[in-house]
Amino acid sequence: MPPRMKSGGRLVVIGGDAAGMSAASRARRLRPDVEIVVLERGDIVSYGACSLPYYISGVVESRDDLIVHAPEFFRRERHIDVRTGTEAVQLKPRDRTVVCRTAFGEESITYDTLVLATGAKAIRPPLPGVELPGIFTLRSIPDGDAIRDRLAALGAATPQGETGAETVPGAIRAAVVGGGYIGLEMAEALVARGVRVTIIELLPSVLSTYDKDMSDLVLRELLDRNVIVRTDTRVEGFEGGSDGHVGCVLAGGQRLSTDIVLMSVGVRPRVELASAAGIDLGRSGAIAVDPRQITSEPGVLAAGDCAESPHIVTGRSTWIPLGTTANKHGRIAGENAVGADIRFAGVAGTNVTKIFGLEVAQTGLSTAAAEREGFAPDSVRITGTTRSHAYPGSGRITVKLVFEQQTGRLLGGQMVGVEGVAKRIDILATALAAQMDVHALAALDLSYAPPFAPVWDPILIAANQAVKKLAR
Amino acid sequence: MPPRMKSGGRLVVIGGDAAGMSAASRARRLRPDVEIVVLERGDIVSYGACSLPYYISGVVESRDDLIVHAPEFFRRERHIDVRTGTEAVQLKPRDRTVVCRTAFGEESITYDTLVLATGAKAIRPPLPGVELPGIFTLRSIPDGDAIRDRLAALGAATPQGETGAETVPGAIRAAVVGGGYIGLEMAEALVARGVRVTIIELLPSVLSTYDKDMSDLVLRELLDRNVIVRTDTRVEGFEGGSDGHVGCVLAGGQRLSTDIVLMSVGVRPRVELASAAGIDLGRSGAIAVDPRQITSEPGVLAAGDCAESPHIVTGRSTWIPLGTTANKHGRIAGENAVGADIRFAGVAGTNVTKIFGLEVAQTGLSTAAAEREGFAPDSVRITGTTRSHAYPGSGRITVKLVFEQQTGRLLGGQMVGVEGVAKRIDILATALAAQMDVHALAALDLSYAPPFAPVWDPILIAANQAVKKLAR
Repeated sequence: MPPRMKSGGRLVVIGGDAAGMSAASRARRLRPDVEIVVLERGDIVSYGACSLPYYISGVVESRDDLIVHAPEFFRRERHIDVRTGTEAVQLKPRDRTVVCRTAFGEESITYDTLVLATGAKAIRPPLPGVELPGIFTLRSIPDGDAIRDRLAALGAATPQGETGAETVPGAIRAAVVGGGYIGLEMAEALVARGVRVTIIELLPSVLSTYDKDMSDLVLRELLDRNVIVRTDTRVEGFEGGSDGHVGCVLAGGQRLSTDIVLMSVGVRPRVELASAAGIDLGRSGAIAVDPRQITSEPGVLAAGDCAESPHIVTGRSTWIPLGTTANKHGRIAGENAVGADIRFAGVAGTNVTKIFGLEVAQTGLSTAAAEREGFAPDSVRITGTTRSHAYPGSGRITVKLVFEQQTGRLLGGQMVGVEGVAKRIDILATALAAQMDVHALAALDLSYAPPFAPVWDPILIAANQAVKKLAR
Repeated sequence: MPPRMKSGGRLVVIGGDAAGMSAASRARRLRPDVEIVVLERGDIVSYGACSLPYYISGVVESRDDLIVHAPEFFRRERHIDVRTGTEAVQLKPRDRTVVCRTAFGEESITYDTLVLATGAKAIRPPLPGVELPGIFTLRSIPDGDAIRDRLAALGAATPQGETGAETVPGAIRAAVVGGGYIGLEMAEALVARGVRVTIIELLPSVLSTYDKDMSDLVLRELLDRNVIVRTDTRVEGFEGGSDGHVGCVLAGGQRLSTDIVLMSVGVRPRVELASAAGIDLGRSGAIAVDPRQITSEPGVLAAGDCAESPHIVTGRSTWIPLGTTANKHGRIAGENAVGADIRFAGVAGTNVTKIFGLEVAQTGLSTAAAEREGFAPDSVRITGTTRSHAYPGSGRITVKLVFEQQTGRLLGGQMVGVEGVAKRIDILATALAAQMDVHALAALDLSYAPPFAPVWDPILIAANQAVKKLAR
């Protein structure tokens, strides 16, 4: 049961990111009669990390565009007591108290209910030289500012597309360590700034949550855009250059000169506060929650990148930190923290990104993930066109479906194409939520018009192939 | 039970459009050992009507692009005996015989199984002067050729964008009678050819399968593009001009000068052959079929625009002639005609089109249709953005959800927006197939990245509104 909240009670939210501010806002909407306090370590609230690469590239022109609302907005319009520069350092659930540190010292605040929205942090592996200036991670707006400052100092082309001091394209070199989403999005952003990029990836392929047959399509696009990609390559350390900044990366036994390094090897949930307070963590290391976002400690809820979610395909708890989930978590935790009783339906891990000229998306389980989760998966992969054969401007789209060998139940899907991927993946996300099999998928009445799809949508072509494969 | 087909038996398909050729091709795939004959009145097979407006505008440059395969392809590659210029004039189910007319006279052909793919024809209401030259309908490639010829004779700008003899934009005037899909797509095509267009619609709004609050968004776009739209206006007749072609339209008590008229007041299934042979028609006037596409006459199947379909929302038979359905019908009828046993899951009536700068789509029932079908519908309508607030180039998208007042079950959806509509509607089409309610819809894990969607997809925003409305 979610906690009750008496009139005049106090909700404290730790963390002012999208999840935290969403929780605070939803709580306020339901309950004008309670006190709501948000404790945020930094200066900024109500931000997401998803637009940061576009801030580096200059596609997003203004830093202000990254922030939905300023703290003053929440204070004034929503009567939410947003305390920036306030770091929660200890949680005492028995006393319903949070100890905070500010510029003026320590203080304690009591709560009736608490929402942990402590988010995730970028991993910085303890490699020799990893603390050198010029080595960055990208999770926050200050991270983005620091990267922009360094690019400006190096003389990179400006985000407005004006050539920088180093006018020769590729004169500035960047190493991106880790070929996940952020790494690839940053590779694109750096190329847009005239920088020569090398991606260094430990695994045999980029985008390791995708099956290799799909991520190889993305790899080809990276190579076509003159990005150097070194897979199966371990980074051993970094060395300083003449200006005291990082000057080279030691990787795979080689010494690669570089002017800037982006570490994008993944993120980890921020759980120190919860863990020290005796709150249970899940198998993934993130905070364990029930479908109401309540932790093992009554009165404490968790939301966003610090918390686990039920997976709608496996039924098990999982940790897939994404902005969409953070917003949903925040909403549910915020409402339940002040007396509502709503549940989170779970995640399919649906995600999409743009990598140069490609849209890349997935939902549910890859073949590899399905095997890890104990399914016996089969799959089909087809390449079709994005428009009717008569209509100009059509391009390629590749659809992969993963399904259960015995039953044909859909387990997941992946897509790579030049257009029409972003919302097409959601057809599969919806089918997963409905536990459809590939027969039901093949029978869908999907939209068709020459500018938008062929008469047999690529999803239907793939589903029909899967049906045929099952019949064998 | 579908009919059995002995080796060496003969399948006759009447009609060589997408449904007919799809039936013939699927039958051949399953059974290399049977004879397959297609009887086609015209010269062309394997075409669809959907791209014709783009052929008029010049977006589709070549007439050949409208045709997927030539008759020779089917004869040579698929051993299908395609007989063009061969009109089926009588069907004798007891004798399993079709009487045909060709340039050389009448002949009869026997069959073991028959697929009727006779399609639909454009309605030409019996108005005074409706047979004047210069008044066109658009269903077939010859129709498209005729319109292109007339536009060339009038001196319209060429499809390649070169100015024609009548260099003043708008010097040539067209009247489009009927503001459905084809009418609006043709309005856009004619504007692209430099023609001044007036749409005349009998009903109070264009796109009458949409609710008026949604079609009004399209109406505004038409007006913004300098198309004149006269709703609530009845066409009374036509008069000839000085050159013997149509010269004016009599409509709503007025006389509108025009150089060309497109009649797009709807289509009707071609059922004369079936009807005369005693085959049952459905409530809609199209041929009644079971889920295996079998008609009331054993051994005779029907597919495409001449046949009804089960509606996945109402469970009742309906007639919604669309290319996607025609292809699925063809596949199922073709396979079942030679011994398979597969069923059609039904239609949601999902459709999409591009009207100037808007994408316009619907699936399932509108509010008006839901009321007609005996539901007690409620609805929500929201306008959101197509991209994240930080990402440039975002535009408006309006989403309407229609759902059952008591249960929240989704009944249909409509969307109008500048991008991202075509495949986003398919999320709703999938949700309809799964009989989801708006709670399930609001819980979907849909994709998000700044270039493609806001973090709360407009569908989720609408679904959350619907959930709120239900709770009241």
